[in-house]
Amino acid sequence: MKSRVLMALGGAVAHNPPGPVLKAFLEQAGGPEAEIVIVPTASARAEAGEEFVAAFQALGQISPARILPIRERGDAHQPMHLAALRAASGIFITGGNQVRLSATFGGTPAERELVAAYARGAVIGGTSAGAAILSAVMLAFGEDGPTPRQGLAQFSAGFGLSRRIIFDQHFRQRDRLGRLLFAVAQHPGLLGVGVDENTAALVTDDACLTVIGEHAVTVVDGVDLAATDVADVAPGRPVALSGAQVHVLTAGCTFDLQTRTAVIPRQQLMME
Amino acid sequence: MKSRVLMALGGAVAHNPPGPVLKAFLEQAGGPEAEIVIVPTASARAEAGEEFVAAFQALGQISPARILPIRERGDAHQPMHLAALRAASGIFITGGNQVRLSATFGGTPAERELVAAYARGAVIGGTSAGAAILSAVMLAFGEDGPTPRQGLAQFSAGFGLSRRIIFDQHFRQRDRLGRLLFAVAQHPGLLGVGVDENTAALVTDDACLTVIGEHAVTVVDGVDLAATDVADVAPGRPVALSGAQVHVLTAGCTFDLQTRTAVIPRQQLMME
Repeated sequence: MKSRVLMALGGAVAHNPPGPVLKAFLEQAGGPEAEIVIVPTASARAEAGEEFVAAFQALGQISPARILPIRERGDAHQPMHLAALRAASGIFITGGNQVRLSATFGGTPAERELVAAYARGAVIGGTSAGAAILSAVMLAFGEDGPTPRQGLAQFSAGFGLSRRIIFDQHFRQRDRLGRLLFAVAQHPGLLGVGVDENTAALVTDDACLTVIGEHAVTVVDGVDLAATDVADVAPGRPVALSGAQVHVLTAGCTFDLQTRTAVIPRQQLMME
Repeated sequence: MKSRVLMALGGAVAHNPPGPVLKAFLEQAGGPEAEIVIVPTASARAEAGEEFVAAFQALGQISPARILPIRERGDAHQPMHLAALRAASGIFITGGNQVRLSATFGGTPAERELVAAYARGAVIGGTSAGAAILSAVMLAFGEDGPTPRQGLAQFSAGFGLSRRIIFDQHFRQRDRLGRLLFAVAQHPGLLGVGVDENTAALVTDDACLTVIGEHAVTVVDGVDLAATDVADVAPGRPVALSGAQVHVLTAGCTFDLQTRTAVIPRQQLMME
């Protein structure tokens, strides 16, 4: 059976020229022969997705990626778009607002095709909002910044392609540890995965996570949380928690989502 | 024997009107009868420390705090200043540049008086740079921001009043988790203690930490680090680490520096 592959990109992904993150997506989609469909729904920009079409071509894709004009719920029923999703070896979801994605796709045939594409082994990737939507429990409308606070983030249902992870993005660039800690305090059975900009978490079979790109992926594991007052604190007040495990993983590191352990490869010793 | 008491303040401490952080310092120094000496050395501002004199008076201090004009190493030998340090029930160190503090005080009689004052039970508090200087291993010249990177922070010797902690300040307001994780990866036997603005860590006998103030204190414990490549990574490259324990502690929470466990008090259940 083909592996199921997700790629959560942290936003601000190098595309001109494209770097290792988009290269890895293209490889996962089958290389030069890849059939890539781009979902621009999260964005309000008319030209959303065009930079990725160009990037994949620059990386050697033969038949250019196709931007699927799904803007309204009605579009998510269009047989032509459903056929394109069915034929794709890779589906790439742009950034924007993740609630626009869930509100447009939720319960539609296009959402079902996307989930079916993942199950048959097409790689599903998303950047920024497109990464947030991948998990079952999705961070929505969160605030950036300091302390974890009660109500700092709101949750909503994503595409459900990972049932072990809550993704966050632009992670350390926007100081989002607070909201990820809050998310994990509230869902300690899930792993918080914060992806930095121009960096990706590649997740295989919802079991193994590999880091690609420039910065890091921060994994917050709340399964051994000793204590938290998240259930009792008033809205807007800081939340305390004790015993979260944090793993900061750079390119080449892997994380086993079942045993919740990381492997950090030995660096080549640097010679001056 | 009197407890030894340190207070590490995260900077931007409310002083007009003064809040719970300065109130706690005054109490630790003996309340209205406190004899407080202010060390402005870290700051380049001529009027540094005056806001704290006013704040302690507003809180009921009878005899106003005295700003000690130690600006050069020569000043740190002045018998008059040494006598003031010897008489103090509280010593308060302002913010600025922590290396100015260590370069001015290092090896002088004034430094010895300060250490002796701590040993006899005077409270020693510092805000921002004044907090960094309190520990034996001090974060100096660190950069803010994203991923822990090789060389992100430099270390230097502080006053050595805590041998279990590395303090950092303006913590989540300046996104300093990266440098604190780096500091702990390099010194996994120490606890990284990141203090948010207008918040304080009160440390008793280098054994028990209590949180006071508006935001949180983040404790990073590296003693169970499973792996890190900090020894091998080239300068400027991201550092990976696995298995850091993180505790986010708000006002009223305590942390035992010996057992490395936190106590989070039960909140009063909130009624609407």
